[in-house]
Amino acid sequence: MSDLPRTVRINEEGPREGFQFERGPIPTARKIELIEALSVTGLKQIQVVSFVPPQNVPGMADADDVVAGLTRRPGVDYTALWLNEKGLQRALGHDVLRIVGSIGLCCSAAFLARNQKRTMHENLQAQRAMLARCRELGVPVTRGSLMAAFGCNFEGNIAPARVVEQVGQLLELAEGAGERLEFVSLADTMAWATPRSIQQVVGAVRERFPALRLSLHLHDTRGMGIANAFAGLQMGVDRYDAAVAGLGGCPFAAHRGAAGNVCTEDLVLMCEEMGIDTGIDLERLIEAAVVAESVVGHPLPGAVKTGGSLRALRTRVRPGA
Amino acid sequence: MSDLPRTVRINEEGPREGFQFERGPIPTARKIELIEALSVTGLKQIQVVSFVPPQNVPGMADADDVVAGLTRRPGVDYTALWLNEKGLQRALGHDVLRIVGSIGLCCSAAFLARNQKRTMHENLQAQRAMLARCRELGVPVTRGSLMAAFGCNFEGNIAPARVVEQVGQLLELAEGAGERLEFVSLADTMAWATPRSIQQVVGAVRERFPALRLSLHLHDTRGMGIANAFAGLQMGVDRYDAAVAGLGGCPFAAHRGAAGNVCTEDLVLMCEEMGIDTGIDLERLIEAAVVAESVVGHPLPGAVKTGGSLRALRTRVRPGA
Repeated sequence: MSDLPRTVRINEEGPREGFQFERGPIPTARKIELIEALSVTGLKQIQVVSFVPPQNVPGMADADDVVAGLTRRPGVDYTALWLNEKGLQRALGHDVLRIVGSIGLCCSAAFLARNQKRTMHENLQAQRAMLARCRELGVPVTRGSLMAAFGCNFEGNIAPARVVEQVGQLLELAEGAGERLEFVSLADTMAWATPRSIQQVVGAVRERFPALRLSLHLHDTRGMGIANAFAGLQMGVDRYDAAVAGLGGCPFAAHRGAAGNVCTEDLVLMCEEMGIDTGIDLERLIEAAVVAESVVGHPLPGAVKTGGSLRALRTRVRPGA
Repeated sequence: MSDLPRTVRINEEGPREGFQFERGPIPTARKIELIEALSVTGLKQIQVVSFVPPQNVPGMADADDVVAGLTRRPGVDYTALWLNEKGLQRALGHDVLRIVGSIGLCCSAAFLARNQKRTMHENLQAQRAMLARCRELGVPVTRGSLMAAFGCNFEGNIAPARVVEQVGQLLELAEGAGERLEFVSLADTMAWATPRSIQQVVGAVRERFPALRLSLHLHDTRGMGIANAFAGLQMGVDRYDAAVAGLGGCPFAAHRGAAGNVCTEDLVLMCEEMGIDTGIDLERLIEAAVVAESVVGHPLPGAVKTGGSLRALRTRVRPGA
């Protein structure tokens, strides 16, 4: 257990993942309500929207209004996702957002072709172009991400050596543009990871790049999310993406294949109970999870919002009861 | 990873847990349908009913009919639960059942008082009486179980030393009656365990009783079930109770506090992907999970029945796709 980190930083992606995924429409005011509920929990980072074409993602048609309606709370970074310069320009129009550039590669050519209609080479070029544009706009690029790092529905297993190679390419890309990545996020985009492959892949990347900080983006499609996060913690990984209540996923078979992120409050409970500080107030986070369920109007997969925290139970224990 | 077992034995408790928990009524024929779907998966042990008073558990009123309707399949042990001699006598009336006696203690006096209306001392006496009765009836007692081994809603944390002491008491009880327990099941009855407390408690019991085989009974109320099972695997624990589709739990808030067992197919997927043999055909188990959901008539919490197996995806991967 010696490698467990003392503190963990959680990047809340529930609003962005959820509003993108849900069939909606969800009123703008309710989206803002959820983000504000999250912003009083102690979360330091909340990804609130993605700036993408509304014809592709109808749930993000009101992204500008959502951001414009936020009241900035000190200590919270509100972030957004964009996939091209047009999206970045929209993000730059909002003072409330913390604008941090990122570059992303993918371990699977087949997934990249289907998901982004690009070859690996075209994607490299696109990342170089994004780096150049960020430089012109004065936007620092500090985040690298790697999709399909643990397996791919179209290519099957992904060798750890390929992940190491792609991480190397991310670092080279950034360095070539005079940028320095603060961390690289390894994404289990299609929920292929098990605790063992987390150990193998993180171990391989660590061996090659011992000083590189890693983050994990874990989808819970096969119920492995929390176990995978635990394996990451055991390897010393101290950054995780997560989604309140498991937003972005759905327990109904009608949403077959829905790949929600690991649930924030379940992850926080595990950390808290193992003595790892997240800076998050679990009771308030559970309240935000209840808001999330009310906002989307159907049950969401997280467990702790129903099961309750242990700290709350402990306060009710009477000696000799 | 050196302690991962090569094989794992799963005791399927879904039918018993589920029929007991669901509001029903579920037709007897559908209960039998689920048990038969489970019996072709490779599962070696299925707990099919509990023989308890119907006024306490209406869902078990047809327990005798369920068992009488089963077609025995070679290689499968069909078992039942009972809590007193009357229940045991009912079980003995069915040739299809494998009758194995068990004794059970509890780490929390407060829980025992509420759950079974007994003091710790009265419970010890009851277990001695059960041992004597089993001896008279020629029923071997090979299983010990320990409730609330990881925490209690009414007592809070449970010290690993108390678990060690209670395990010792179980072994003494059995030995005093001339029986030899094959294993002791540590139950996370109220879902307090985290991967860390699994390590601590299993570690403490192992240190005191290195030759004792352990089993884990993990409730998933707080989403820790699979992570806790992984922690158990890392400690070399090779027996787990589980429930197909997560039967016995429910994602709806209306069933607040519902404490389903860890989901069998999610556990099997994790084992299979980590190279641990369960002897279970995951595709058939997923089919049984779909039957389970149909039998109870509402969504059940397991993930893999919706997310699908990885082996199935791999067979669809075309080289160069």
